[in-house]
Amino acid sequence: MKAEFINPFLIATKNVLATMAQIQATPQKPRLKDGITSYGEVTGIIGMTSDEISGSMIVSFTEKCILQIVANMLMEDPKAKIDDEVVDAVGELTNMICGGAKVHLARLEHKFDLAIPNMVVGAGVEIPYYSRAPTIVIPFATEAGPFVVEANLSERR
Amino acid sequence: MKAEFINPFLIATKNVLATMAQIQATPQKPRLKDGITSYGEVTGIIGMTSDEISGSMIVSFTEKCILQIVANMLMEDPKAKIDDEVVDAVGELTNMICGGAKVHLARLEHKFDLAIPNMVVGAGVEIPYYSRAPTIVIPFATEAGPFVVEANLSERR
Repeated sequence: MKAEFINPFLIATKNVLATMAQIQATPQKPRLKDGITSYGEVTGIIGMTSDEISGSMIVSFTEKCILQIVANMLMEDPKAKIDDEVVDAVGELTNMICGGAKVHLARLEHKFDLAIPNMVVGAGVEIPYYSRAPTIVIPFATEAGPFVVEANLSERR
Repeated sequence: MKAEFINPFLIATKNVLATMAQIQATPQKPRLKDGITSYGEVTGIIGMTSDEISGSMIVSFTEKCILQIVANMLMEDPKAKIDDEVVDAVGELTNMICGGAKVHLARLEHKFDLAIPNMVVGAGVEIPYYSRAPTIVIPFATEAGPFVVEANLSERR
């Protein structure tokens, strides 16, 4: 995956969390993903496709982190556990982060369409990517705990 | 989900299994999905999107069933367990089934683009759909055991 593909996801993630949940998400050093298991307790997956590139983006939240994010989004106290409303919020955040990255990538002349997200509940669930291209992991730190954004994008031959 | 959306997935599934794995997949009575957990040990998820409709399709195989399908595809004895090659095959089958359904749906003037598939390994994993539209489950019986195709499609307002 090209290095120029990373920043759009990083910027979009920071913006979406700040705007939607008033949460400052501080990006840590990106790394290559080792293994195929989900990072956090709840994970959003979204497909990206165009004539030029194809791939998937994953956002995976630890429970404590997403409960605080959703509390801020809904202006309520944090829920005791992950429920339908939290899962829906993960779908929305996945959509918005990938939508934001799409806008930034379009400025670099990389255009693609978004599919709708699917969510997977559970930490350590095996979620292999379709493409054998390396997966970039961008870890984020927040006051409420960590989450990661993963992107696996390949240019079509 | 419109009834006319069901047959294209049913026909495509039968065709792909027959062509790729010489396996006769006999559709059982479609039903509405109850709950959000994955049916089989390995599951492919693919997004569909257009200006008109959006949704996801899931194909979820029991272990015995997918090991026999992959054995037939590779013309080898069945593997002892689900490995990378089996997961890749599930991605390909998901792609091909949804691609086949796309062709049939295009004849009904429902056009959409496919995202690339993601896979989830594990039975009973929670994989909620993004849309609250009802999910249709089409169960299939084969000599090697059962699998299901699920489709959750909504027309955009």
